[in-house]
This record gives sequence, C-alpha cells and structure tokens, in this order.
Amino acid sequence: MSRDEKEFVKAITPQSQDFSQWYVDVVIRAELADYAPVRGCIAVRPQGYAIWEGIQSGLDRRFKQTGVMNAYFPMFIPESLFKKEAEHVEGFSPEVPWVTQVGDELLTERLAIRPTSEIIIGSMYSKWIQSYRDLPVLINQWCNVVRWEKATRPFMRTTEFLWQEGHTAHRDEKEARDRTLLMLDVYKRFYEEDLAIPVIAGRKSESEKFAGAVDTYSVEALMRDGRALQAGTSHYLGSGFAEVLDIGFLDSDGRRKFCHQTSWGVSWRSIGAIIMVHGDDRGLVLPPKIAPTQVVIVPIMGGPQKDAVLARTSELEEMLGSRFRVKADRREEYSPGWKFNDWELRGVPIRLEIGPRDLKAGQVVLVRRDTGEKRPVPAAGLPAALADLLDEIQHSLFDRAKAFLEENSFVAHDAGELASTLAEKRGFVYAPWCGDKQCEQAIKAETGATVRNIPFDHRVTSGVCVKCGREAEHWVPFARAY
Amino acid sequence: MSRDEKEFVKAITPQSQDFSQWYVDVVIRAELADYAPVRGCIAVRPQGYAIWEGIQSGLDRRFKQTGVMNAYFPMFIPESLFKKEAEHVEGFSPEVPWVTQVGDELLTERLAIRPTSEIIIGSMYSKWIQSYRDLPVLINQWCNVVRWEKATRPFMRTTEFLWQEGHTAHRDEKEARDRTLLMLDVYKRFYEEDLAIPVIAGRKSESEKFAGAVDTYSVEALMRDGRALQAGTSHYLGSGFAEVLDIGFLDSDGRRKFCHQTSWGVSWRSIGAIIMVHGDDRGLVLPPKIAPTQVVIVPIMGGPQKDAVLARTSELEEMLGSRFRVKADRREEYSPGWKFNDWELRGVPIRLEIGPRDLKAGQVVLVRRDTGEKRPVPAAGLPAALADLLDEIQHSLFDRAKAFLEENSFVAHDAGELASTLAEKRGFVYAPWCGDKQCEQAIKAETGATVRNIPFDHRVTSGVCVKCGREAEHWVPFARAY
Repeated sequence: MSRDEKEFVKAITPQSQDFSQWYVDVVIRAELADYAPVRGCIAVRPQGYAIWEGIQSGLDRRFKQTGVMNAYFPMFIPESLFKKEAEHVEGFSPEVPWVTQVGDELLTERLAIRPTSEIIIGSMYSKWIQSYRDLPVLINQWCNVVRWEKATRPFMRTTEFLWQEGHTAHRDEKEARDRTLLMLDVYKRFYEEDLAIPVIAGRKSESEKFAGAVDTYSVEALMRDGRALQAGTSHYLGSGFAEVLDIGFLDSDGRRKFCHQTSWGVSWRSIGAIIMVHGDDRGLVLPPKIAPTQVVIVPIMGGPQKDAVLARTSELEEMLGSRFRVKADRREEYSPGWKFNDWELRGVPIRLEIGPRDLKAGQVVLVRRDTGEKRPVPAAGLPAALADLLDEIQHSLFDRAKAFLEENSFVAHDAGELASTLAEKRGFVYAPWCGDKQCEQAIKAETGATVRNIPFDHRVTSGVCVKCGREAEHWVPFARAY
Repeated sequence: MSRDEKEFVKAITPQSQDFSQWYVDVVIRAELADYAPVRGCIAVRPQGYAIWEGIQSGLDRRFKQTGVMNAYFPMFIPESLFKKEAEHVEGFSPEVPWVTQVGDELLTERLAIRPTSEIIIGSMYSKWIQSYRDLPVLINQWCNVVRWEKATRPFMRTTEFLWQEGHTAHRDEKEARDRTLLMLDVYKRFYEEDLAIPVIAGRKSESEKFAGAVDTYSVEALMRDGRALQAGTSHYLGSGFAEVLDIGFLDSDGRRKFCHQTSWGVSWRSIGAIIMVHGDDRGLVLPPKIAPTQVVIVPIMGGPQKDAVLARTSELEEMLGSRFRVKADRREEYSPGWKFNDWELRGVPIRLEIGPRDLKAGQVVLVRRDTGEKRPVPAAGLPAALADLLDEIQHSLFDRAKAFLEENSFVAHDAGELASTLAEKRGFVYAPWCGDKQCEQAIKAETGATVRNIPFDHRVTSGVCVKCGREAEHWVPFARAY
C-alpha cells in the first residue's frame, strides 16, 4: 500500500467498523454534500447534484412515457386550506414550519411550507377539472419540501429536501388504482434498471400508510448494513381529498362525481440508496447508467514522453466523448496514485491509464471500479470494449446487490426466531403475521423492526402470527429501516 | 369569420385595447398558469412549465459549456447570517418572509426564506475554498425564491418564483469581471438565438445596482406595448461578500486573499418576455427552438375517408417524430376549426392539416403561426421543408422583434422632447445624461421612465444632460419598465 493509498483509507472509516460513519465520510470526502449552517439542512455539491440530475432525467423520461407532464405549484399553503383534510394535517402538522411575518409585518394568516402538495395542488384541480373530458390529469412536480425531523442525516433525512411528487386525478377508482400501481412499477424498474438496486414492491400496512391515503405502496431496498430503506411510495388516495377540496366533474351520464386521486414520490434519498447499496471501503461505486462521469482518463505524465502521452489523452477523450461521459484528469499538482484513489472515491466506473509504455504498445490500461480488475486493452477496439464493459458493470452491480438481498433474507417462524435473527443477521426477516396493527406495534417495540410492506411477490407459507398465534394473513419482511 | 373564431377572439382582449388584460387572457386561456390561493403566487400549468423546461435546458447547456456545474443550497437563512452584509440586507429585508415557528414551537432564531442566495452560498464557499487551487468555483442553482412584492402579475412579478442563480468565486478581479461579462453574453445569445428576442446589453446605473454589488449588468428587451423588461442580470460583487463571510484563500505567493465573486440570474419572467414580444391577438407565438410542440397535425376526419386520414396522420407523426416535437390532435369532440384556433392560441409554430382531398393529392396543407400563410406541400418532401421552415420562422421572429425594437427607439435632446416622446411613442428613448443619480431620479419622478442601462453598444453623441444641462457622460435608453 502506497502512502497515497494509506492516506485515503485513513480518511474513510471502514464499513465494518462503523457503517454510519463510513456513510458520512463518503458523502463529505467525495464532495457530494456538506452540512449547512441551518439545522438539519445540507448543501448539495456539484458531484452530488450531478447524480441527482441523472436520477431526475431517468425518472422524468419514464414519467413522460406514461403521459405525465411537469408543472409547478406554490410552496406556501394558507393555514385555513392546509387544515382541510384532518388525517393529513394530523400526520404532518408537527413537522411544518410556519411563515408568520414578512419584513416587519405580521401576516393575517399563517402560511405553511409544503411538506407535500396534495392540498395546494388539489385546490387548483378543483378549478381546472369540470368535465370527464378534462380527465385524467397527470401532473408531476420537481421541487423542495420541508419536514422538521429530529435526527438528520445527509440525503436520508434532511429538514429541506428535493423530490418529485406526482399528482393525478381520475374518473373512477379502477383507473386511479391502475395508475398507482403503474407508477410503483416505474419506480421499481428505475431502481433496478438505472440504479442497479433490487427492490421489493408491495403494499404498506395500515399503520405505515401516508396520512390521508386509502392505500400506500412502496418499493423497499436493502442497504449493505442490513437496514431497509423505503425507496419510493405510490398512494391511492381514493376520493377523500377530492371531497374536502371539491374536486368534482360532470360525468357523461350527466351526474357530478368526485375524482379518484393518486400521488407518488421519490426523493434524494435515492442518492443515499446508491451510496449504501454499492459503495465500499474505497468510497462510492456508481452504476454506469447514472454515473456523471463513466470513464476517467488518467495520463501518466512523468518523463520525457509527457507531450506524447497528453496528445494521446486528447485523442482518446475526443474519440470516446461522443459516446460516453468522459473526463481526462490532467492536473499537474497530483500524482497518478493520488488520482487513482480520488476517482475511486468518487465512484467512476472505469479508469483508463495511459503511460509511455502503453503508447508504444498501442494500448491503454483499463481498471474497473467495482472489482478492481486491471487489464491492457488495444486502443483500436476501445469504444466497443467500453460499451460492453459499462453494460457488464451495470448488470454485475445489480446481480451483486440482488445476491446480497437474497443472502440477507431470512425466515422466522416464531417470535424468538424473529428477534434473534433480527439481532444477529439484520436484513429482511420474513415471518407470518395476522395483519393486526397491535401485533405490528408490539414487534416494533420489542425489536425495532417494522413490517416493510406486504410484498406482491408473496412468499405464501401457511403459519400462525409470530406475535399472537392467530392464523397468519401474510408473510411479510420485517426489518430495521432508515 | 366562423363562429369558432369569433368565440376565441372574444375570449382574448385585443392588444390594442388593453395590453395588460391581453397578457393575462393569454396566460390563462393558453393554460400557461393560473392564480393560486396564496397571495401573489401562481400555479404553472403543464403548457407553461414545458416552456420553462425549454428555457432551462437551453440555458443549462450554455452554462455547462462554460464550465459551470449545478448544485443546491438550503432555502432557509438564519437571521444572524442573513444580516451580515449591510447593503444586501437593506435591499431585501422588506420583502423577506420569516419562519418563526415549527408545529407549535417557536424557533430560537428566525429563518429568512431566500430572496437570492449570495449569503447562504457564500457561507459554504468559506468552508470549501482554502487554496488558489480550489479556484475558480463555478456553480449554478435552479430553485425557487421569494420576494414579497406589492403588485403581482403572472410570471412577471410573483411572490414565489423559479429562477437560476449562478455564483462564482475567483482569484482576482479580472477573472471575476470577465466571468460577469461572459455570463451576460450567455444571456444575450440565449435570448437572441433561442428566444428570438433582441436585447440591449449594458451596465446598470448606480441606483439600479443589485444590493451588495460593485457593478450590475443587464440585458433589456422591449415588449410590444413599448415597455422595457430587464430580462437578466449579471453582477460583479467585488470582494464585499467575501470579506463579511470570510471567503479567502492562500495564494501561490503564500498570502491569504479574499475571493472576487460574481452572481447572475434569469427567472421565469423570460416566459413573460416570450409572450409579450411575440404574441398577437390570436394568442401565443412560440419561437420554434423553445416551442414544446413545434408541429401539430390536425386530421380533417369528417366523411367516409376518416380511417384513411387517421392512418396518414399516424404515418406522418411517426415520420416526423424523430426529428421534430410533433403532436397529432385526434380529439373527436372538437371541430377542425376549433382546433386550429386552439393551437394558434397555444403558439405552435406550424400546423399541418390533412383532409381527404390532401390524401388524393399526396400533400398536406401547411400553416405558419407567425404569418398565417397557408400552402400545400408534397408529403414526400415534408421533413426537409419543415426543417427549413422552422429555421425561417425562428429568424423571422427575431427580425420582426428587432425591427420593432428599432422602430421604437427614439432620440431626445432635451427634457421636453424626452417627456413627450415617452408619452406619445413609448419604447426606448435615448438621451444624453450626465450620469448623476439626482437627474436620473428626477426624470423617473416626472416621466415614470428609468435609465435601462448604459449600453455597451453605445450611441455616443455629444450633448448635454437632458435634466441638468451639464456635459453628458452617456447616451442612455430611458423607458418605462416592467
């Protein structure tokens, strides 16, 4: 291990030693984000924001393919409007910041800052929707929201965060329920295909539902420390919001009806998921599809052939730049070894090294971030080789994460086995459950684990509830979660 | 004029009758935005947001070409931090909303909601910048900001609005000043090339400077009612913010120095500019480069050949869809005439009509939104014809706006001529000015017009100040502005 390497390794706490600290070290050292001088808020730095831009463009493309368009609604919600939907208010009120004055003047009505936008968007839908011909309304919004939470953690739980929230209005329940599940599937495919993160899709239990929803669905992922992460949610809202906000329409049968609605969201927690599913003790590991830089070229510039090496670097950069997201690191003030570590920390999938010897041999040395594998490749066939390799890395990251998920999925048949497996192994522990809220709460109190969701891909096994001994309705994954 | 047409024309107030009402009618009728139930706030609807997405992608691409990356900073600024830069605070304080409580609890320190982010971003730069090696820092942020203004108007002046704000830090004054002008030039080119809006680039007078800046530069456009619009600004901030926020670095000479900074912004006012520069009594006219839909196909579906017409529509849609942003309007519940008016209202640059007769003749009827010109085009050569025509429309809109700008630019040699020209002609009235703030304020009080900027492209003519009679320092355009 060189001096450079030691320095890097020292700066990042090993996962095995303290996963939580490892996470923060990676976020700060890879310059993804930094703590801001506002309680629970972060500043997202260019390297982190570029990942968010990749997430945005991947999701946005998928949304638009299903007919969704983007829009923008105010972040302020007048108190009288905010308080219209009782469950919703109860769920969010403690976390809501209030604007009470402007300059030196007190406002006559307090303004809530949106924790989510069902209410303000619904109030506009009640103006815009008149007839069945105006339906469905399929709108998404990319925005900031605020939830004042006690513990905060970069990307995972911050006072203000960026997300997208989709809000749709439909003519009947079936269409709305179909949309709810369609968007959950969009999330599942996005996580699995773009972020290489396998997820479990299912319905949330009654007690974990969104405030005001009839049904909440989620995709759940498993981090490398064995804790679960709710990676995205999709809600069937029924016509509850429509009734309090008067979102109605004249149907073709001449009768006025209330809309059925959905909402669905993914936040920048997804960046946290990428870090905690793929990262290792050397730092970030980015899936090629989302990596802001897919290939970094590091010229080895020492010695008399410096100019020739730099010329070759520029040739390669130009040749590859039209097809891949490429960067060449020509910095003079850092050694090649330092740069290798730096780009590994930042998670760039492929590194190309070019030195004087490679020039002569007509080759470059190619290094994979995920496996560390290093091999010379003839310069001539490079574009095709890179395309194949990026594809291979993308799939290999997914397979590795999938294998991890499976290795860390266990089964428990009774309360003792559930508690001991959760304590010793972490991960998802599948167990039979009667479906009752009280059993769920009791298990949570005893083990710290919650029912993540009721998976569509049900592991149906007969059995009795691990808590109460009544016949089980579901086999569900219990886990401690972020 | 058909019944359909009359209905549309009735719904939009003619520009000549009441330009202000015409603007609001177009915004509402074309479904760009609507008034929200929060004072001074609007909800931007999908049709309006799609224009904003076009603006974002056009600007973002240009920013990135100059090395800028995006990031995101908190919207809350603790009061103690907010008050650090005196001029800045004085300029923004009356318009700032304060968060004073969360849930039922009072905060120990009030939080301002950003009217702009120099302070919060600067506070992070003071952590991130240590050495000259860390410079320049070139960051942009796309976000919402809030300014509590008295009169509001969709897109032009709203309590909350979306914009981009760039913030850069440099090693010395020259580099920072070069960046200030570079970004102004990016704005000028964006407005002229993408939005087809000619602008006057120049330096703002002392009294119109950004609060805390050493120099403010702007691009100014002329709306069709003869009022000016400040369409974008770029500020050289000097080292004032750096000194109060301690943004310093160790230079290569071993001395610690303060950074020189810039900031620059364009907001969704640019949507207002598009409406008011290109629009007419039939509604929006969108420049092809920014139009969310460039070509709309309207099948004439009456009669026995309906299926053949629809089949041809699908063929055309597919053939053109890979090259242009195309939509086909197959709605059954509206007549062709109604659709023609509807797409004209929405500003789509080119309409293609296909009816039974066109099928037989192997042609489509092509209609330009900007001129109303209508002509048959052989279906075979359509892609090339459309590409040429979109290009021609883009240039023609610019030329028309440029001609309007020139026809509405006047010269005044004394106070009387200035006042009468402003009253009778509106537009830009160039007049000699001593450069003194008092003369500027007096003219503003008398005529309602302000010095828009001191143009780079200076009409240098000798003369004496229209107000005080002293020797003139500049010839500047006076105008009433939005």
